[in-house]
Amino acid sequence: MGSDPGISTPAGPARNRRISLVRRPAGVPCPGDFAIGDAPVPAIEEGQLLVRNLFLSVDPAQRGWASATANYSNPVPIGTVMRSLAVGQIVQSRAAGISPGAFVYGWLGWQEWAIVGPGAILTWIGEPRAPLPAYAGPLGINGVTALLALEGCGRPVPGETILVSTAAGAVGSIVGQLARQKGCRAIGLAGSAAKAARCTERFGYDQALDYHVADLAAALRLLAPEGIDIYFDNVGGATLDAVLRLMRPGGRVIQCGTASVSLWDPPPTGLRPEREVLMRRLSWNGFVVFDHVARFPGAIDRLAAMIGDGSLVYDEDIESGIEAAPAALAALYAGLNTGKKLIKVAEL
Amino acid sequence: MGSDPGISTPAGPARNRRISLVRRPAGVPCPGDFAIGDAPVPAIEEGQLLVRNLFLSVDPAQRGWASATANYSNPVPIGTVMRSLAVGQIVQSRAAGISPGAFVYGWLGWQEWAIVGPGAILTWIGEPRAPLPAYAGPLGINGVTALLALEGCGRPVPGETILVSTAAGAVGSIVGQLARQKGCRAIGLAGSAAKAARCTERFGYDQALDYHVADLAAALRLLAPEGIDIYFDNVGGATLDAVLRLMRPGGRVIQCGTASVSLWDPPPTGLRPEREVLMRRLSWNGFVVFDHVARFPGAIDRLAAMIGDGSLVYDEDIESGIEAAPAALAALYAGLNTGKKLIKVAEL
Repeated sequence: MGSDPGISTPAGPARNRRISLVRRPAGVPCPGDFAIGDAPVPAIEEGQLLVRNLFLSVDPAQRGWASATANYSNPVPIGTVMRSLAVGQIVQSRAAGISPGAFVYGWLGWQEWAIVGPGAILTWIGEPRAPLPAYAGPLGINGVTALLALEGCGRPVPGETILVSTAAGAVGSIVGQLARQKGCRAIGLAGSAAKAARCTERFGYDQALDYHVADLAAALRLLAPEGIDIYFDNVGGATLDAVLRLMRPGGRVIQCGTASVSLWDPPPTGLRPEREVLMRRLSWNGFVVFDHVARFPGAIDRLAAMIGDGSLVYDEDIESGIEAAPAALAALYAGLNTGKKLIKVAEL
Repeated sequence: MGSDPGISTPAGPARNRRISLVRRPAGVPCPGDFAIGDAPVPAIEEGQLLVRNLFLSVDPAQRGWASATANYSNPVPIGTVMRSLAVGQIVQSRAAGISPGAFVYGWLGWQEWAIVGPGAILTWIGEPRAPLPAYAGPLGINGVTALLALEGCGRPVPGETILVSTAAGAVGSIVGQLARQKGCRAIGLAGSAAKAARCTERFGYDQALDYHVADLAAALRLLAPEGIDIYFDNVGGATLDAVLRLMRPGGRVIQCGTASVSLWDPPPTGLRPEREVLMRRLSWNGFVVFDHVARFPGAIDRLAAMIGDGSLVYDEDIESGIEAAPAALAALYAGLNTGKKLIKVAEL
């Protein structure tokens, strides 16, 4: 590559440590579904980028990507690097118009070094407007999901009541703040009393409760005696069954995740929803953020402005060392994280 | 009233025969839930209309109105005239600006004579553009539901595939024709082979099948190998469970009825839908036509034009005599009708 003018060649890596998927998970991926290994880093080819990963993202959606069951993306092939988003820095480029040095967020995988085409990049960070890890959280798919799903599917109106599940999580913590900005009353469901407190003390929720309460429907009826206009749902399951029966006429249900249902095969059953959909005239929409990549820059711009002026806060839970990644996903599903889960794999 | 200038007083009725609800139905209303009786017709008061009913409507929604369970309307009180729509003629008026003689469609009840305020009228028929019974069917809530739900919730795009349950029914038979006009491929589900044949031979469906097939999902997969874009659902239940799993990404589910589920208490269970909503990015909307009364005139105008030019056909199943009404509702749920079910209670 040294003979290729205009291509910078910082010191390249010797070996790439990476986490491979070695087995189809039964439900939530556990550490045994992954293996850590390393391999030489080949020279990049024409059109490729070499990216040094800095922060690997740990996302609930990875459960679906690792699953053999068809969903919105192809399953990660067994024996290959676990699919993930990450923030990294381009260190070599053989792609036209792309220079080394740029920070990016995209499909870089659970590994220390990524060789990708420009199509793998979701966000060209440019001059960072927030610390780099934020680009994998409130300025990554979590924040963009919160903003676009709330506005596009939730259509919030001032004075309405919104309920959010996993309200202290990477998406929910942002939904609450955005909903409050829009004049809604925000109620959060979280996995512990401490997280519920975090919702109200830090993330702008008017009220929040631990969903492990004995009678969730009764507790919600007390908090929202006139019903719920918008349910931003990341969990599905029995909580969803209960909330559907508390929705106000014309209510909107945003299905962003189904984290509470650990297995889909055999298909689990629940209370029939169609009468609720009809009688309450619900509008129930599934939202997958990757359908909206063209809108990422605009959304990130708005979110970065809010972070800049202090109107949007977020928590991070950053571990160091790639060997922490396999257990991080199971820990996320167990609710053990305290903010957006990231794995730091390099120093700047 | 004779002393009230401008008020015409055609020969009034002596007695009003009427069907009262005498018991909360267990599921689908049966004849024993009703009683026929008669009562004198009082003089109308200021602001009221006396309407001679001509055609009583028999609608699946009456099950919900007769039920004690809260839904979008208050339950019919026990001992009162069964709520229904009907086409009738105003024979006396003490309401400002309303003259006797006009044909109307509205909340007139299962009775021969109705005393109502002008607010009970859904449609002022004016100069009829189709035979009067049509105003309780394709120009009544059935046709308006088909048009507004298909356009508003279905958002059909030429080339898309739409599936319709109760496709030979009063709503479904119109949905199929409208969907074809919009360039969609229409597949109908009906309760018998004869009704399925009616769907394709008369109502414009490209294909139709009896839902009593051994493996409905497999049969639908054969008819729609690339999946279903729009499901116009009037039945819910196991058919809905199957169809959700055949929807294409971005598909729309219109919940217009839940006729296949006979009891909602205790709450019935089914396959969990939230993963389908999420992964397929479904938009699942409940539609109740009475939310859209302001749009009735425009919708009826369009439907009447189609009937006038022959591009919209419909079937009617008209019985004579008010004593036929109680059994007609159960017969409707049993699929014994052959077209929009009406009870003729007077000659013009």
